[in-house]
Amino acid sequence: MSDEKIYVPPHVWKSEVKNGGKFSKINRPTAGSTHDAPLAVGKHPLQLYSLGTPNGVKVTILLEELLALGETNAEYDAWLLRINGMQFGSGFVDINPNSKIPALVDHSGKTPMRIFESGAILMYLAEKFEAFLPTDPNERPEMLSWLFWQMGSAPFLGGGFGHFYAYAPEKFEYPIDRYAMETKRQLDVLDKNLQNRTYICGQEYNIADMAIWPWYGQLVLGRLYNAAEFLDVKSYKNVCRWAEMINNRPAVRRGRIVNKTSGRLELQLRERHDASDFDERTQDKLEAK
Amino acid sequence: MSDEKIYVPPHVWKSEVKNGGKFSKINRPTAGSTHDAPLAVGKHPLQLYSLGTPNGVKVTILLEELLALGETNAEYDAWLLRINGMQFGSGFVDINPNSKIPALVDHSGKTPMRIFESGAILMYLAEKFEAFLPTDPNERPEMLSWLFWQMGSAPFLGGGFGHFYAYAPEKFEYPIDRYAMETKRQLDVLDKNLQNRTYICGQEYNIADMAIWPWYGQLVLGRLYNAAEFLDVKSYKNVCRWAEMINNRPAVRRGRIVNKTSGRLELQLRERHDASDFDERTQDKLEAK
Repeated sequence: MSDEKIYVPPHVWKSEVKNGGKFSKINRPTAGSTHDAPLAVGKHPLQLYSLGTPNGVKVTILLEELLALGETNAEYDAWLLRINGMQFGSGFVDINPNSKIPALVDHSGKTPMRIFESGAILMYLAEKFEAFLPTDPNERPEMLSWLFWQMGSAPFLGGGFGHFYAYAPEKFEYPIDRYAMETKRQLDVLDKNLQNRTYICGQEYNIADMAIWPWYGQLVLGRLYNAAEFLDVKSYKNVCRWAEMINNRPAVRRGRIVNKTSGRLELQLRERHDASDFDERTQDKLEAK
Repeated sequence: MSDEKIYVPPHVWKSEVKNGGKFSKINRPTAGSTHDAPLAVGKHPLQLYSLGTPNGVKVTILLEELLALGETNAEYDAWLLRINGMQFGSGFVDINPNSKIPALVDHSGKTPMRIFESGAILMYLAEKFEAFLPTDPNERPEMLSWLFWQMGSAPFLGGGFGHFYAYAPEKFEYPIDRYAMETKRQLDVLDKNLQNRTYICGQEYNIADMAIWPWYGQLVLGRLYNAAEFLDVKSYKNVCRWAEMINNRPAVRRGRIVNKTSGRLELQLRERHDASDFDERTQDKLEAK
């Protein structure tokens, strides 16, 4: 019991991080690099700097799917970029001024080309390899709509619900309630969409599925925030059906363990530099949830 | 003074909206339509259903810019879609299952085509008219990066900072602090990017500017959340310079008043069905902030 104080915001906000929760050391109110740190560059055309979070695995899933199609030019090095200050190194800030994973450099042209933001990387790679885009150009608007839907919606799931439910220093009722409601609404949007569709845009698997699955698919598979019961994810039956189907794809099983640093050790491929890096992980282990 | 209660989340979240703030009546945990309501369709190829919020004006700015280039096929009807339940009407849900503005229907092909999510609509229209995309295809990755950056970042500004600073029923210190810090970081990302660039991607004005300006440009111009002093927006000098420059474009002045329902009455063009609809608004009025 204590006196409840009414908070009055100051005229001008000042940075006074007292109790930012689990991730308080990684947030700051300024951008730019804090130290000199060139990026490592491997042997493949595509150099990925990432972490095995939902945004990170969007890209490794697409790369593994491209390789499974036989696109040898999609070979890549996946470097681990830990969110412990590495994101403020000069080399990384040069390729992503926003200091977030994932970021990609394509060395296949005359000069290296940077791409940041997971959705932008999906678009870039799908267009480069002309794969996992709708085969009928009339369906491109539907793919764009759902791809951008994911980008605008998941901050309410990850930055909103996940933060306040799992990471904030206290359980604040109002934000948990706000973001739980929105997350459930988003799950219902997907569930109604998948009622008569195999994949997000219809009969074809494309980058919209690869953008949405790492967040909403893994949420209903019980992998995010320990929130499956709280959000009653089993009630979204169509999302669950679709999530399992995507989860069973071999390329997805590979992609989702790249740059992973948590969970079971044998399902963490912290860096990936060659297709054979997966060999130690038996199919049995990759199939385990 | 009262006893401070520790909140313990229940095992399963239940909808009990007690104090959702200014927008509590528009949030719900389910998707889909609540009532039958066909959409009006006007005479032009493009039918926009929107509201003059930052996400809405992204599209009307692009449409006005396209018309200013002489693209007569970009003529459009902009219908007012109020967020008071209209977003749950059956006709609107058919074109945007996510029940958010803006949503567009293109009637120029054999069958009407729907597109939702502001970023998707920008991509669709820019590709359709081959305008406001980088002229050098090597610069497409940079445009994609910043376009998707906006989509993934603005939910922290709008759904996070704006909600807790301006609309929530109480001033909660932790979320205000969290989202103010992130909003300032985002402004600093833009400020550093604009240090040596005229526009977001370099020397050319493109859809990345049109996506970012309605949020971050209008924020530094003091138009959002009455937060200019709190966020010390004047310290982001490069963003301010760029924001003023975009603000002075005649197409932007027209686009930003379409479907507007707040602010000065003479700067509200609630529906737009013809270029002449702007005639009553003199250039002087359009130039006023």
